[in-house]
Amino acid sequence: MADTVFAKIIAGQIPSHKVYEDAHVLAILDIGPLTRGHTLVIAKEPAETLGELSDESAAAVGRVLPRLCRAVVAATGVRDYNVLENNGAAAHQAIRHVHFHIIPKPSEAEGLGIGWPAAGLGRDAAELAARIRAEVR
Amino acid sequence: MADTVFAKIIAGQIPSHKVYEDAHVLAILDIGPLTRGHTLVIAKEPAETLGELSDESAAAVGRVLPRLCRAVVAATGVRDYNVLENNGAAAHQAIRHVHFHIIPKPSEAEGLGIGWPAAGLGRDAAELAARIRAEVR
Repeated sequence: MADTVFAKIIAGQIPSHKVYEDAHVLAILDIGPLTRGHTLVIAKEPAETLGELSDESAAAVGRVLPRLCRAVVAATGVRDYNVLENNGAAAHQAIRHVHFHIIPKPSEAEGLGIGWPAAGLGRDAAELAARIRAEVR
Repeated sequence: MADTVFAKIIAGQIPSHKVYEDAHVLAILDIGPLTRGHTLVIAKEPAETLGELSDESAAAVGRVLPRLCRAVVAATGVRDYNVLENNGAAAHQAIRHVHFHIIPKPSEAEGLGIGWPAAGLGRDAAELAARIRAEVR
């Protein structure tokens, strides 16, 4: 974990375009933005996936997301945006350190490309919900 | 706001497959899942976008995301997943009430379709970061 580029940015060993910082969170501009203003909200805690993040860090990240979204909207003038957090290589996670993307979406053709292959709920939906519910701890 | 389907689900007027509930958050199965186990984490506070959500509600949603991610992984056996929150019609927001999607990603070909048209940072990156930073409040 200590070797990710985000750990080095948090430690001040690599420069970044800083947008916000507190005890738990660092927000910077993404150096490979999908659109202008694309911002990364990084948990300082060195967890690889959101599921591995502590409740405290996750609450701290959640708490600052609205104000960071508002700031990105205000600075870019783009009203719509996606907030995305990827976990695992199949899910397009590039850096193994928890981070949320705030990605301005000026139009459907720009910004995050979203494919939405929706299906119906299976017949086992009630059973599946019960299984997930039982795993919440 | 009171007329969204989520407000009605929170009020118990429409049934759902409930996965988790506390004072600030309701999590249910998405009825149009991208993959099996696709879960919605809904803020009970009736805000339309994440930028409009109170700090307190946003922290409460953030706090429960890790445990809900772990529960979805445990129940589905799918390790990778995307967490997505959409704001505005251009950004694919369908229901005007803040909700995060937890979407299992069994492979690159299944689940959320992700287009990533990355570009470089513009020459105004330092100025843009300063502008966003000044808007954080």
